[in-house]
Amino acid sequence: MKQVTHEIQIATHGKGLYEFTSQIERWLSGQHPQTGLLTVFCRHTSASLVIQENADRDVVADLADFFARLVPEDTRLYRHTAEGPDDMTSHIRSALTNTQLSIPIHQGELALGAWQGVYLFEHRDHPHRRSIVLHLLMDS
Amino acid sequence: MKQVTHEIQIATHGKGLYEFTSQIERWLSGQHPQTGLLTVFCRHTSASLVIQENADRDVVADLADFFARLVPEDTRLYRHTAEGPDDMTSHIRSALTNTQLSIPIHQGELALGAWQGVYLFEHRDHPHRRSIVLHLLMDS
Amino acid sequence: MKQVTHEIQIATHGKGLYEFTSQIERWLSGQHPQTGLLTVFCRHTSASLVIQENADRDVVADLADFFARLVPEDTRLYRHTAEGPDDMTSHIRSALTNTQLSIPIHQGELALGAWQGVYLFEHRDHPHRRSIVLHLLMDS
Repeated sequence: MKQVTHEIQIATHGKGLYEFTSQIERWLSGQHPQTGLLTVFCRHTSASLVIQENADRDVVADLADFFARLVPEDTRLYRHTAEGPDDMTSHIRSALTNTQLSIPIHQGELALGAWQGVYLFEHRDHPHRRSIVLHLLMDS
Repeated sequence: MKQVTHEIQIATHGKGLYEFTSQIERWLSGQHPQTGLLTVFCRHTSASLVIQENADRDVVADLADFFARLVPEDTRLYRHTAEGPDDMTSHIRSALTNTQLSIPIHQGELALGAWQGVYLFEHRDHPHRRSIVLHLLMDS
Repeated sequence: MKQVTHEIQIATHGKGLYEFTSQIERWLSGQHPQTGLLTVFCRHTSASLVIQENADRDVVADLADFFARLVPEDTRLYRHTAEGPDDMTSHIRSALTNTQLSIPIHQGELALGAWQGVYLFEHRDHPHRRSIVLHLLMDS
């Protein structure tokens, strides 16, 4: 067995879900794991990770709308407002989703289901470069 | 060290939480890990995973009720309605809980606390067969 | 490669977020991992884990307030009330956050971002000793 780490950057331009499954798979395909565990870690507290359906784009739009309703950008609700009305809401929306995901590699394939994609959930309005660390444990 | 993967199926018959801790432990007991890390991965976006108290059945009933109130089945709220009123809500409820859980094996035992059980949280009304991939890293 | 497990205790005195990043790093620094994966597991269903901003204390206060509003301590909403008004809400708040977190070790450092800290989120009013299991996979 061996382990490898790798850092990738994802450019975002405003709130929403950005699929990066193919970016992960491109890196993985150079490693040829037969059995393994891939961990995806988001180094931010105002963007997060989620595995969602990637067949119908409406799903991620509805998901983003739900979080907008659940965690309103009403600065009267928060103490931490110095970084703008979309900052504290970003921390809360991140806490409700994931900072980290681990996905087994089973029979030479990432164990994602037929309709599962890996998304970065950007919670801020302004463009950002988000840093994601990948850790792969695999048969050598 | 070595790693092993295994796929299990869980039959569901409507919404609710289905404990499968004993199914996990049955498989683990054939592997005899002393130290390790078990990862449980749900290959679906309309069912999810949660670790919850397994002492009082009321806990999981209250938990299911909470999610029913938080994510209402009101199709006016969603674009993605073609697969029924319980589909988009399933994706949201999955995003709020977990697609993956990893549990250490410490001193020969899964590190679950005294009252912790591992549950599949089914969000759809119709019966489904849910596929769960287990990944075990262990001392060989 | 090798793996090590370790159990730590965190004393809490009422609801709120307790950062324990330095406690994790103290243990890690005795292990000298260059590449690895650290898994943090909370053995309770009325306390949970979250990675949040540790620069401004207002962030975790706002986060705690949000969960207090989202999951109200109104016993009329729940069946499971025998352990007090703060018990069922604790289970729900735990389900909405995390029981487990895994963090890569990349180039000799925990991959936490500049402002990320690891917190225990205590959901109960009374003092508790919370048990956390750490699992480390590392180059030997």
